[in-house]
Amino acid sequence: MIDDKTIAAISTAHGTGAIAVIRLSGNEAVNICDKVYFSSSGKKLNQQAANTLHYGFIKDGGNTIDEVVVGLFKAPNSYTGEDLVEISCHGSLYIQQRILELLILRGARMAQPGEFTLRAFLNGKMDLLQAEAVADLIASNSKAFHDVAINQMRGGFTGEIKKLRKQLLTFTSLIELELDFSEEDVEFADRDELKKLVQEIEILLRTLKNSFALGNAIKNGIPVAIIGKTNTGKSTLLNLLLKEDKAIVSEIEGTTRDFIEDTISVDGVHFRFIDTAGLRHTSDHIEKLGIERTYKKIEQASIIILLIDANDAVEDNLKSITDIKKKISKTDKKLVVVLNKTDLCSPGTIQAATPKINETLNDNERFVPMSAKKGENLDILEKTLKELIHAENLEQNAVIVTNVRHFEALSHAHEAIVRTKEGLENHLSGDLLSQDIRETLYYLGEITGEITTDEILGNIFKNFCIGK
Amino acid sequence: MIDDKTIAAISTAHGTGAIAVIRLSGNEAVNICDKVYFSSSGKKLNQQAANTLHYGFIKDGGNTIDEVVVGLFKAPNSYTGEDLVEISCHGSLYIQQRILELLILRGARMAQPGEFTLRAFLNGKMDLLQAEAVADLIASNSKAFHDVAINQMRGGFTGEIKKLRKQLLTFTSLIELELDFSEEDVEFADRDELKKLVQEIEILLRTLKNSFALGNAIKNGIPVAIIGKTNTGKSTLLNLLLKEDKAIVSEIEGTTRDFIEDTISVDGVHFRFIDTAGLRHTSDHIEKLGIERTYKKIEQASIIILLIDANDAVEDNLKSITDIKKKISKTDKKLVVVLNKTDLCSPGTIQAATPKINETLNDNERFVPMSAKKGENLDILEKTLKELIHAENLEQNAVIVTNVRHFEALSHAHEAIVRTKEGLENHLSGDLLSQDIRETLYYLGEITGEITTDEILGNIFKNFCIGK
Repeated sequence: MIDDKTIAAISTAHGTGAIAVIRLSGNEAVNICDKVYFSSSGKKLNQQAANTLHYGFIKDGGNTIDEVVVGLFKAPNSYTGEDLVEISCHGSLYIQQRILELLILRGARMAQPGEFTLRAFLNGKMDLLQAEAVADLIASNSKAFHDVAINQMRGGFTGEIKKLRKQLLTFTSLIELELDFSEEDVEFADRDELKKLVQEIEILLRTLKNSFALGNAIKNGIPVAIIGKTNTGKSTLLNLLLKEDKAIVSEIEGTTRDFIEDTISVDGVHFRFIDTAGLRHTSDHIEKLGIERTYKKIEQASIIILLIDANDAVEDNLKSITDIKKKISKTDKKLVVVLNKTDLCSPGTIQAATPKINETLNDNERFVPMSAKKGENLDILEKTLKELIHAENLEQNAVIVTNVRHFEALSHAHEAIVRTKEGLENHLSGDLLSQDIRETLYYLGEITGEITTDEILGNIFKNFCIGK
Repeated sequence: MIDDKTIAAISTAHGTGAIAVIRLSGNEAVNICDKVYFSSSGKKLNQQAANTLHYGFIKDGGNTIDEVVVGLFKAPNSYTGEDLVEISCHGSLYIQQRILELLILRGARMAQPGEFTLRAFLNGKMDLLQAEAVADLIASNSKAFHDVAINQMRGGFTGEIKKLRKQLLTFTSLIELELDFSEEDVEFADRDELKKLVQEIEILLRTLKNSFALGNAIKNGIPVAIIGKTNTGKSTLLNLLLKEDKAIVSEIEGTTRDFIEDTISVDGVHFRFIDTAGLRHTSDHIEKLGIERTYKKIEQASIIILLIDANDAVEDNLKSITDIKKKISKTDKKLVVVLNKTDLCSPGTIQAATPKINETLNDNERFVPMSAKKGENLDILEKTLKELIHAENLEQNAVIVTNVRHFEALSHAHEAIVRTKEGLENHLSGDLLSQDIRETLYYLGEITGEITTDEILGNIFKNFCIGK
């Protein structure tokens, strides 16, 4: 994958647009572009200053392909750290393709997925976590995920880990030095200070590792299941939740969010409704969700919304609640009991039911009386959803791990540091201690990119889109 | 539609890409961008030179939205002729939308479809035909259509029409001056010279008008019908034609042409196969195309490929040919008779059939013996298709009208100039002559955009995409 040829790719979204951008990066980027770029002044790009824009034509021999604007960046001050040319052309698929083909005929090669960012990493323009954040940023479809990604791209937890790793490295050197003098029983590495450092690292790694549950949910949307007996208003509630959101987003013309079909965003956190196909377009009375399908939904969900009808007998409703609670005990799933159709019953009924229902619920469980049909208490339900995932931790500077690779490396590093800690407590010999520390260092380095292999890089960048 | 507010739009194709570009144009473009753009140097865009690129961040208050590169163009040296800022951001839909929303909150308004190009027209950066060519260029999906569009964008036939219109205008003034001296029977306008000019205009308008049939076919693809009895190999031929093309286009990774599903491109000319749904995925023996459906296909087609089986009796095949010829007589439809399955019969059979078939055919009709199954003579069939539409006229500088609006105005102008010509021949009085000339001038002006109304502009630009 890694060579020094000049690479080219269409960097804007696939399809017809007003304009499209084709990128060229590498030693020959300017020369290759100059073979097909002609300005009316006759000036070539290689005579131009960095960070400038130029109007002209892309020509294939005598044939004009397009009128373009070319942006010129010079190494090392570019995204990739190499000479970089961005050709902004008319957004026809035909033109995009013709220009790309032409650049390749003139000496560039097609960029691999993520290769521009890989080069940025290899040229020291960003560390590995920042490179990965670029992919996340492009994939980000909610405020929360976006905030985590941009925080990571701007440094995130890399700095802290790098610093601690460096300190730990010093200690290992000292411990390993002790081994050379093993007969003399010296301790170059102050064990108390090492203990303090190891403790600090253990706490950081644990916090980061634990943030992954939330991070993963943020990245993919928090899975929510809406369940309940026939006729409790599941479709109505779903449509209310979805419609509410659509109304907000369609305020500005042209900015429809058709890509979040069955998700809602509450203050920037995505909730994803499971198996809504049956719920979206059917009215309540023809809902035919089998019990098995309901259980499957519960399994996939982080949050379960159980709908009960305020007009049903309280005993029946309590039975429904305990059934579900049994089902989800021993999991960390959250439950919201929605007492629906409050508009159709007397305030007395609700007042009587409320304490009984509340009595059955524990910390991770909430109660919301509402009328889905009238939209009453929708705001309370949304607030409840957000509260349940502790979204208060989600301000822009929160350090949250969303990446499986990081999670795995953090888990390994955490295991190793715990062993180190135990070793220190048990006054383990230096050589054994050193082994655990080395392992910690290895996994920490894997996160920051200070230790990489072609395999790691390959796995990371293959999931990028082409052109980035 | 026309005001002087600063407009903003996402200009790249809708969807997630590596990068996306958001455009801002108008007096306030730089100021609005400076409200959300922050460079690490602290320098604002309004302190920067034109045609330069700047790295920085888009921020909404304390929240960083993205790391961006901003391109700065200053009036009048920009696409629109106004101050223009292009923000190149990470291509997540969320980020694109957040930045666009932010720009609108800070004082821009959403651009209407084609509004950037409309402003370019209103600011004299291009004439109306050039503006229309921009839309064609973006829509162009074949070499031929692209070549026509780029030719038109670079001036095309506007210059010639403008020149002739100006000359004609002089004559009208002279003729109308004569009217003031009507009692004296003077002729300021030299009738012989006027005749020569009118003749020249008539020829040009006729040529342009007649080019529309080809131009329209180029724009939308030449419609081709493949017909023939059951079991003559229609599916095999279609798949051969389509497969051949796909093989070519997939040579360069990442440049698939999934947008030309049932079309092929022969040397840049698009042929579009009608009603291929039944042909694509069925094998011959289950083809069940009724005779009515076949007639409908013939009606929609410009070129008809009639398949006959070389192993059938010659008389039967000749009967098929005469049937079709009867059907398309009095139209300008072209016919290609394909004698298929030549691999399954003796050379003698083909030699015997060839002169008999050729005898039935006239100028617009061709004969191709081939084996669709073995791919034999496919090249000849393709060459024949291209020949039939006179694609030899299609070099890049050919003046071809592809736009219905132009065709209509040209037709009206042509009618008026023919009346003028007849009037001159019949020594019509100056006032009547002047009327016909005025009408010609009006329609010519409508083409070049020298005469426009809000309605004309509205109709033209409503079909543009947003962001151009």
